[in-house]
Amino acid sequence: MTAVAAPSPRIGIIGTGAIGGYYGLMLARAGFDVHFLLRSEYAAVSKHGLHVNSTVHGQLHLHPVQAYASAADMPPCDWLLVGTKSTGNVDLAPTIAQVAAPDAKVVLLQNGLDVEDSLREHLPPSLHLLGGLCYIGVHRSAPGVVEHQALGRVNLGYHSGTAANDEARQQAIVEAGAGLFHQAGIESQAMANVHLARWHKLVWNVPFNGLSVLLGTGTTAMMADESSRELIQALMAEVVQGAHACGHEIPASYAGQMFAMTETMDDYLPSMYHDHLHKRPLELAAIYARPLAAAKAAGCELPRMQALYQALSFIDRHNR
Amino acid sequence: MTAVAAPSPRIGIIGTGAIGGYYGLMLARAGFDVHFLLRSEYAAVSKHGLHVNSTVHGQLHLHPVQAYASAADMPPCDWLLVGTKSTGNVDLAPTIAQVAAPDAKVVLLQNGLDVEDSLREHLPPSLHLLGGLCYIGVHRSAPGVVEHQALGRVNLGYHSGTAANDEARQQAIVEAGAGLFHQAGIESQAMANVHLARWHKLVWNVPFNGLSVLLGTGTTAMMADESSRELIQALMAEVVQGAHACGHEIPASYAGQMFAMTETMDDYLPSMYHDHLHKRPLELAAIYARPLAAAKAAGCELPRMQALYQALSFIDRHNR
Repeated sequence: MTAVAAPSPRIGIIGTGAIGGYYGLMLARAGFDVHFLLRSEYAAVSKHGLHVNSTVHGQLHLHPVQAYASAADMPPCDWLLVGTKSTGNVDLAPTIAQVAAPDAKVVLLQNGLDVEDSLREHLPPSLHLLGGLCYIGVHRSAPGVVEHQALGRVNLGYHSGTAANDEARQQAIVEAGAGLFHQAGIESQAMANVHLARWHKLVWNVPFNGLSVLLGTGTTAMMADESSRELIQALMAEVVQGAHACGHEIPASYAGQMFAMTETMDDYLPSMYHDHLHKRPLELAAIYARPLAAAKAAGCELPRMQALYQALSFIDRHNR
Repeated sequence: MTAVAAPSPRIGIIGTGAIGGYYGLMLARAGFDVHFLLRSEYAAVSKHGLHVNSTVHGQLHLHPVQAYASAADMPPCDWLLVGTKSTGNVDLAPTIAQVAAPDAKVVLLQNGLDVEDSLREHLPPSLHLLGGLCYIGVHRSAPGVVEHQALGRVNLGYHSGTAANDEARQQAIVEAGAGLFHQAGIESQAMANVHLARWHKLVWNVPFNGLSVLLGTGTTAMMADESSRELIQALMAEVVQGAHACGHEIPASYAGQMFAMTETMDDYLPSMYHDHLHKRPLELAAIYARPLAAAKAAGCELPRMQALYQALSFIDRHNR
């Protein structure tokens, strides 16, 4: 790699797993000044760097990596990309506050609904909080090693902060974020409404994450069986219905697009499959409980999604 | 055992698994002339007899057993109790025709809806066909060995035959059947409507059979977890709703009774759990597909039950 003068701004990656590792490496390769916070994988990444084995880009290697084992050692960052599990958001605020430059933009690259809420109440009010919805197939195969199977798009929406009442400023911030990804060769769309963006992503996550655990399989087997295809489509329709009840219009054709897109993918094991396999807590609150509660508060029952959530709750509690 | 003169009638057991073995042994102990048709377990039962290890009755042993490897060797029977899986009913008619006395009563001790239909069309018209709903906890632990954990009641209803247009005669036949069980110390109720009786049993079977496979567990764990409890109750409510749509009234309190009864039971692994464990076909048509189709034809969707059925169909197809 030739040396490139780093354009501002400075980017911090909080949680360098598959998501944080992939996007951080891509941004660093594009010349950005990227700093990575790690926990258990700090030693491996410091020594060997970050690897991304991509079906799209080939074998990528970032070395040396600006890696940190403690947030206290990191320089103040203008953009913070958070790739940790949403199950830990409550405890994340002090870390973010420590690393954030004044007026920093914090992007939660997480699935689910309202994942920003539990974090927001503990964040300094000066920080902008954004939601980032990643349409990507990645998983971590070893410390510091990310397998990138497909796609990569990040859709961004403004959640809260000092621009809450200023739509033009919100739009400028979100477009600046999308611009960072564009410069790294990553598709990214500025969304006018973060909640709508999150409901869009749920159309895929609700069926595929949960069923991968329940059926113990990946997308290829699910898309090859008539019964699971019907169940996936019925769950997608319920998500669209729940979004509608909450005031967010998702065209029915969007579910069809997500379904068709999944058919073109190589076999993919969603993150919840890996979480279950490694006996980590499942992201049930973000992906199931909160959308169900929001729909119910709007008078809308989603029975299949609720049944799936109840079965997964049982499985999750018996998997620790 | 002291020798007792066998009262008529002669009873044949078709399929001597857990259900056939238990009821056949109990009837033989009561002095009836009982003949057992077996396949893979013929040698073991001929040599060692039938064992029932019962939490209610203690250790029971029937030896010698009137056991047969071929229906052609059996004497004509007045009552035939069928304890095979409903998945094999299509192929069962020739065997039954061979063993049945003229005017014989054939009782399907099976779960699910309309399990009689595929058999009926191939049976001689002179035979009476009855449904038998077993409220019992049994499983087969070894060739010729049945573990009896709880309960035992058999509810009977007339399905079809030469008494189809004669309610009084139907009632007499069903009460005669209940009488046989009573003489063996087994609770049994004559039901006016076999379809209603089958919907009643589905209130238990739909949640517990399917969830035991999906969650990989028995009744105790399911009844101890808040999420699975809610899912069980929601599924029970859907079955009551489906029955209602099909013109069969089950009081809502009945579901509550089944739920409460299950709480008093020792841990129980339903038959579908064992079928899945041993990679046998699941009884999905009888317990899920036909009730769903009947409800749908009556304009009633049962979304949780349908989702459960779709997930189980996937699991079943990937388990052979």
